[in-house]
Amino acid sequence: MGFEDYFPVWDKLTPAQKNRLKGSAVKRTAKKGTVVHGGGRGCTGLLVVGHGQLRAYIISGEGREVTLYRLLDLDICVLSASCMMRSIQFEVTVEAEKDTSLWIIPAEAYREVMEESAEVANFTNELMAARFSEVMWLMEQVMWKSFDKRLAGFLLKESALEGGDALRITHEAIGNHLGNPREVVTRMLRYFQGEGMVKLRRGMIELTDKGKLQDICQGKQ
Amino acid sequence: MGFEDYFPVWDKLTPAQKNRLKGSAVKRTAKKGTVVHGGGRGCTGLLVVGHGQLRAYIISGEGREVTLYRLLDLDICVLSASCMMRSIQFEVTVEAEKDTSLWIIPAEAYREVMEESAEVANFTNELMAARFSEVMWLMEQVMWKSFDKRLAGFLLKESALEGGDALRITHEAIGNHLGNPREVVTRMLRYFQGEGMVKLRRGMIELTDKGKLQDICQGKQ
Repeated sequence: MGFEDYFPVWDKLTPAQKNRLKGSAVKRTAKKGTVVHGGGRGCTGLLVVGHGQLRAYIISGEGREVTLYRLLDLDICVLSASCMMRSIQFEVTVEAEKDTSLWIIPAEAYREVMEESAEVANFTNELMAARFSEVMWLMEQVMWKSFDKRLAGFLLKESALEGGDALRITHEAIGNHLGNPREVVTRMLRYFQGEGMVKLRRGMIELTDKGKLQDICQGKQ
Repeated sequence: MGFEDYFPVWDKLTPAQKNRLKGSAVKRTAKKGTVVHGGGRGCTGLLVVGHGQLRAYIISGEGREVTLYRLLDLDICVLSASCMMRSIQFEVTVEAEKDTSLWIIPAEAYREVMEESAEVANFTNELMAARFSEVMWLMEQVMWKSFDKRLAGFLLKESALEGGDALRITHEAIGNHLGNPREVVTRMLRYFQGEGMVKLRRGMIELTDKGKLQDICQGKQ
């Protein structure tokens, strides 16, 4: 499959616009753990995921992280091209969580097409609205949900994403997703273990009672 | 001044598009305290502020509020027309904080013009990006800033907005801006009073040492 199969409004573009995007798009692969955007590299461009998994997050002045959203197959990241828009005043970092193949469309080329084409501009609007919605969801969680609910929800989501009940993840990595120090994660996981909901092993967390985690997540316990 | 003076990309519209917007825009005034959008009223439309002050906020299941952003003269609220975009999955409420004159452009009319016009679509994109940036700023505050810093910052911002050091605001209203219970606000304000930074009176907070509040806000204390 080529780049055009991954870009939803491709059919609405003029031949010149198609050439502009196709001619500037760069295909690359990123090994698990690679930072694809951020860390002072300036404006990377639009990221179009072919196959794999990316994580977008922010970092505090003290180096604490919190995950904003994940990008899976066919997803498009617009915030890595934030220089296209004057009004975006924040920086996200994007890293590969699995080996990932992707296209990078340079911001300048994309912006040119977006300025000409109402379809591309409206499509970009929807992309941004989707990310905005994810961040609003996250903010509501942070504002109004206690940490046990957030952690239970995270474990269930990871299990769905990975398709299994044994998660290979460190307590520190969970802290980086949720924006909490490692010790806080460890303490709560030990409580979950005491209640029979998880079993902790080195570098691994096994979910042993997903129904109970679900109840916690929904505030039934 | 007419509606066209308040709408930045007016000159880029075709005569038909101008008629579409002008013909459907409704002028109204909202008394202080009126809810202009939200509370189950569906999709209000784009709000263009002529003169006054609006507050956009979200409400938790338990009725707690947190302020997302303010809209002042000439500002435009796009999230009150969120039904225009499929990908927006959250609800904001907008209320008048002062007596406010505004235009409401029905979402359907605006969406029609936005689908035709790359200029309007890109302008809308910038509007949304600006709100997105404010929410990201807020999330970073909530994630990483302690409550004393947030409260000091809020008092200074209110003082700048109102142009004076005596703020007529209740502790409950501050809690609704910051997403915290009233008691937490009262406790911290009493601490600030003990340190000589504010003087508390009935329904009023006087800022008596803005330099010290500034220091707290910037983490120098």
